[in-house]
Amino acid sequence: MVNTNNTAHEARLRCRQNQLTNTAGVAPGYLQANLLVLPSKYVADFHDLCLRNPVPCPLLGMTAIPGDPNFVRPAECIRSEDFDLRTDFPKYRVYSAGKCIESRRDLLDVWTKDHVGFLIGCSFSFEDALTAAGLPPRHQRSGTIVAMYRSNIPLLPAGIFTGGHFIVSMRPYRPEHIERVREITRAYLSTHGEPVAWGWDGAKQLGILDVTKPDFGEAQSFEEGEVPVFWACGVTPQIAVEAASDKIEGLVFAHEPGHMLVTDWTAEDLQKLKPGSI
Amino acid sequence: MVNTNNTAHEARLRCRQNQLTNTAGVAPGYLQANLLVLPSKYVADFHDLCLRNPVPCPLLGMTAIPGDPNFVRPAECIRSEDFDLRTDFPKYRVYSAGKCIESRRDLLDVWTKDHVGFLIGCSFSFEDALTAAGLPPRHQRSGTIVAMYRSNIPLLPAGIFTGGHFIVSMRPYRPEHIERVREITRAYLSTHGEPVAWGWDGAKQLGILDVTKPDFGEAQSFEEGEVPVFWACGVTPQIAVEAASDKIEGLVFAHEPGHMLVTDWTAEDLQKLKPGSI
Repeated sequence: MVNTNNTAHEARLRCRQNQLTNTAGVAPGYLQANLLVLPSKYVADFHDLCLRNPVPCPLLGMTAIPGDPNFVRPAECIRSEDFDLRTDFPKYRVYSAGKCIESRRDLLDVWTKDHVGFLIGCSFSFEDALTAAGLPPRHQRSGTIVAMYRSNIPLLPAGIFTGGHFIVSMRPYRPEHIERVREITRAYLSTHGEPVAWGWDGAKQLGILDVTKPDFGEAQSFEEGEVPVFWACGVTPQIAVEAASDKIEGLVFAHEPGHMLVTDWTAEDLQKLKPGSI
Repeated sequence: MVNTNNTAHEARLRCRQNQLTNTAGVAPGYLQANLLVLPSKYVADFHDLCLRNPVPCPLLGMTAIPGDPNFVRPAECIRSEDFDLRTDFPKYRVYSAGKCIESRRDLLDVWTKDHVGFLIGCSFSFEDALTAAGLPPRHQRSGTIVAMYRSNIPLLPAGIFTGGHFIVSMRPYRPEHIERVREITRAYLSTHGEPVAWGWDGAKQLGILDVTKPDFGEAQSFEEGEVPVFWACGVTPQIAVEAASDKIEGLVFAHEPGHMLVTDWTAEDLQKLKPGSI
């Protein structure tokens, strides 16, 4: 059998066909992206939100022209000409007035000439590096979706986007491995970088009282002595949209948590992707 | 009498002579800077801290070569050849093992060949724009030092810098003026941008229970109906140093809160100063 997950383009084609859903571990070495799509009049505020909150909302790219789902800038982010933002994620969510009203396989019927898409870094991007160092994330080994939680870290306001908080993803590790895990993920500044908190005290500081009950994804098992390690998560923009509530007129689209876009950016491109470069 | 405050260079010369202390309102149109000076081995971690926390720690420039106090990059930040980082702030603080141990007029005796300086944006930079819009900050009218508080917003960790929190500056405004104040300061992304919280509820959310007792600067008077408006503040790096405590070997230097460096950057340069550009 031909392994069709090796390149980003092949992974996108399989996601378009919904043959792939959870993208953790897919196309190693390529950076994966979260999605947020907004009516054009909110683009300036959302861009400002990303620049002010680059750890949960690091920009990997955005669509270049309102209504055009085929072209992302910078052009290096997506290099295949057949790209379509409306189909190439495995699964989408539709928001109206801050509420998720539908889960969909594509956005073909709901996309308008006024929509602009933002691609936001995903922590799946550094998981290959963790695995290569002998520290594979639990959810990859168990074939589950990474556990994600609402935290109490405030998202710094920008325009209509006020009152949001960070979503965080969690991977269990042994305390003696945390410094190594921090070092490995530190370089991935554009895909959330190093953890925002760790340990049971860290969970408490984030306001997460029960790690067995994630708000998105699936609960992860802990082996003896392991503690939770938390990274900022690109589902955060969906919380910003929830908090903006009916200040947003028109439909907003996002990806289904865990169901990401595989971009053509690689780990070697991380230096080009410093906050503010897009 | 010749007004010697009109250009940034003239203001720096007066600060060097300690003829100027509180720099609020000095050299309108020029961006002002906070200071943090570290031994070179902590530079990568601190730079990462700034990229991860660009709202409290926006970089305007840094010294180019360890031990050289005369040259800042980008070169547009400070254009006068006689510049000396050790003398051109009106007042300095010396930290050892996370504690402020001394306040000084210059750093000439304590600076070493291993020290690297970071210049961090200051909210004084947008006060001219507020004044021009008929919304002058109270502390400028009263000739006091802006009120600054420790908040509970966590500084996102980077390397040895863990466990810190934002410092915020506060200006009283009437509730009906807050949207205009947000709009005016939003463009100043590299000098803290728009407020992080506002109103009495905002103060509570930041964990500030008594606005009459600032942690730095001076208490500000409130006129009837006014509420506090809070911006992230460039004193935050000093809290990061406090939190790093004895993880830092060697002396650390900072400015005395309210006693800033006037740079040659102007409000017109803000577009060049997006997070990550330095």
